[in-house]
Amino acid sequence: MQHLILLSLCLLLAASAQAQKPHPCKSPPLMVGRISVTYPKEALFAYERFTYDALGQRVRVRAEGLYQNRSFHDDLLMLFREEVMYEISYRNHSCKKRALKAPFQPIQIPRDAELQAQVIVGSSSGPGQGLLVNNWIGEVPETEGKYFMTFTEFGCLPITSLYYTDKTGWILTSFFDLVIGIEDPQEFFPPEFCATSAAVEEGDVVTDFFQALLRRDDDQ
Amino acid sequence: MQHLILLSLCLLLAASAQAQKPHPCKSPPLMVGRISVTYPKEALFAYERFTYDALGQRVRVRAEGLYQNRSFHDDLLMLFREEVMYEISYRNHSCKKRALKAPFQPIQIPRDAELQAQVIVGSSSGPGQGLLVNNWIGEVPETEGKYFMTFTEFGCLPITSLYYTDKTGWILTSFFDLVIGIEDPQEFFPPEFCATSAAVEEGDVVTDFFQALLRRDDDQ
Repeated sequence: MQHLILLSLCLLLAASAQAQKPHPCKSPPLMVGRISVTYPKEALFAYERFTYDALGQRVRVRAEGLYQNRSFHDDLLMLFREEVMYEISYRNHSCKKRALKAPFQPIQIPRDAELQAQVIVGSSSGPGQGLLVNNWIGEVPETEGKYFMTFTEFGCLPITSLYYTDKTGWILTSFFDLVIGIEDPQEFFPPEFCATSAAVEEGDVVTDFFQALLRRDDDQ
Repeated sequence: MQHLILLSLCLLLAASAQAQKPHPCKSPPLMVGRISVTYPKEALFAYERFTYDALGQRVRVRAEGLYQNRSFHDDLLMLFREEVMYEISYRNHSCKKRALKAPFQPIQIPRDAELQAQVIVGSSSGPGQGLLVNNWIGEVPETEGKYFMTFTEFGCLPITSLYYTDKTGWILTSFFDLVIGIEDPQEFFPPEFCATSAAVEEGDVVTDFFQALLRRDDDQ
């Protein structure tokens, strides 16, 4: 009888130990926050404020930074369901409308990512002194890319994403000042002066988010 | 009278706003934790466990990693007050004793560092989802180096240190799994087999911590 109790206790502990190991999670569908992007090979260093709605597949990004030693400022509204992207300039009261033929990529840990390590950023010795995070690694077969992602254990919030391919080199994205929810739902409406702007130009198609950020215009 | 009350309220708020701005702080004198070091120019990638005693000016580091594509393992005991460093190998039961002519550098934000930004790593939307940190920048006139440091607001714990000189390129140090206090005070005693080892060799002087880590031996 004692052996049976011991065995069942061991099995129970083994099962809960298995359950304790983190699994890839999905981040909250509504978020606002800030990002810094470092992309040395293209000499792109950007600092962005974003509003993110995974339910409506909408992203608004206000970016500023350096691209090949020239400063830039961008205000982009991406409506993935409508397959349209607006480049907004409040200064010039102008709006460029482009076709957006990119699939919406929610912020999440890929399902086939492997847990590399769970660590505490800072310390668990006192309140407010540390943050429990999980490091995930994996590969993207289509691009022969490798990624290294850090998400919080509680809330599944993105912290950093490091992406590497031979073609691109390293691209480091750091997230901070995240708030769950949308501060202003009108962020996803194009401003009024966009209504009068031209229709989507023929052949002017954006196929991914990075491409959108990298297509600098001289008027900015 | 009302004006006077309003004025004093404004002055009070201004004073507390001034006081709210973080100032360079000193980290706890006793810590254990882990570090990852990335030093691309020397092709050094190390992962270290350390025990740190700023009161006794003693550091024990167990490092493993890659140096110029060769793996290494180090066990170093640095006693800065005694000006001696032990290179310990439990496998070979051997000990190398070296003169350590480097000033002890406590983990701290330099006094003349400037606050770059206060940010939340993760989110403040839920408990356990974020960490309030301060980013500090500054220069080291002697080496013409620049540094970028992140420390927690609560507890003044190190998170990352990015150091740059034209000579060295970037050196990135990330701290994690920090615990305030010393788990085992005997970590600072050299093992018994060190007592029989040779005295400090003439001319075998270590002048800084990095030099100690970079002087790889073939027997390791």
